[in-house]
Amino acid sequence: MKIAILLYPEFTALDAVGPYEVLGRMPGAEVVFAAERRGPVRSDLGSLALTADAALDEVGAAGLLLVPGGPGSARQHGNPAVLEWLRAVDTTSTWTTSVCSGSLLLAAAGLLTGRRATTHWFVDGELAALGALPAAERVVFDGKYATAAGVSAGIDLALHLAGRIHGDAVAQSIQLVTEYDPQPPYRAGSVATAPPAVVAALRANDLIVR
Amino acid sequence: MKIAILLYPEFTALDAVGPYEVLGRMPGAEVVFAAERRGPVRSDLGSLALTADAALDEVGAAGLLLVPGGPGSARQHGNPAVLEWLRAVDTTSTWTTSVCSGSLLLAAAGLLTGRRATTHWFVDGELAALGALPAAERVVFDGKYATAAGVSAGIDLALHLAGRIHGDAVAQSIQLVTEYDPQPPYRAGSVATAPPAVVAALRANDLIVR
Repeated sequence: MKIAILLYPEFTALDAVGPYEVLGRMPGAEVVFAAERRGPVRSDLGSLALTADAALDEVGAAGLLLVPGGPGSARQHGNPAVLEWLRAVDTTSTWTTSVCSGSLLLAAAGLLTGRRATTHWFVDGELAALGALPAAERVVFDGKYATAAGVSAGIDLALHLAGRIHGDAVAQSIQLVTEYDPQPPYRAGSVATAPPAVVAALRANDLIVR
Repeated sequence: MKIAILLYPEFTALDAVGPYEVLGRMPGAEVVFAAERRGPVRSDLGSLALTADAALDEVGAAGLLLVPGGPGSARQHGNPAVLEWLRAVDTTSTWTTSVCSGSLLLAAAGLLTGRRATTHWFVDGELAALGALPAAERVVFDGKYATAAGVSAGIDLALHLAGRIHGDAVAQSIQLVTEYDPQPPYRAGSVATAPPAVVAALRANDLIVR
């Protein structure tokens, strides 16, 4: 299965690399990182660039399309080259997926209209305006469209996808190889469980996805 | 704080990017990805390269040193340029850290002699031969040396480090921004919880860290 992962300036690195680490280990997976132009694409924090091995016009089809989020994603909502590419590849895909604010970009391309979808908690109010049906869940499937919540949720999404594509044993094997047995030292990963003062400070700082 | 992350051919991408996503969000963090030569460094699965913005000899000191693992790490055990760089930067660091088989590389450089350390479950038998004291835990601190188990464990390590360096509220804030509220669809992330048939198949295939 060909897996295309979109890159654009100021994407969030873990949004792309978390799912890559899982999906890239599926039997027969062929992953390509694609951007408007080939070459390094700098992520949001500034100190890491991932290489796009292909330009968008070199990737005409994919079995699985994945769109990461990040502070730079909103600028892509008005980029015809990216929007048209998303729509074109979507006509060929078995799965069209996103992490974090990547779902807003899929929605901006018109691909989530009337579909249940999730996104980063900080921007969850924006899904409805783009025509999607917001669901405050970590991973949401609606037909072939699968969306994940913020940043690290892409790992969970990818394990769900591996299970649906190759069965539980393959997905479990990938989980064990990546030793995904999470033991965070705090229970602050969601608005429901984080200390209220931490949530309030982030909201006050308008700290979008970074 | 300056944070240096080592890259080498066939490192595992999530080993580096998981911690980067957390540590890079600490106040005042300055991350540099460093390799023997500047430029793209290809990770183990072949379809992703991260850019090293600095050559090793351009990074003489770091407050935090992080060594990712991966199938390519063993080849670095005999690379004097890398071993000497690790030893030199370690003399300047407040924290010397690793993910996955990165701890074996730290041990090969002589930095974990007599210290408790962890690594990927598949290679945990190799720590003792390199002079470390193996501990089958997800994150292990021994003085300024902090090691994580396989691949995804680097995210947990980084949250521990953020808490020790900047306090709980900052670490919790980063956990919430990265929405690290793990909900894996299986309980297969450790040898203790994965289906025995899955563990046995991986062992039989000699499927080291990939």
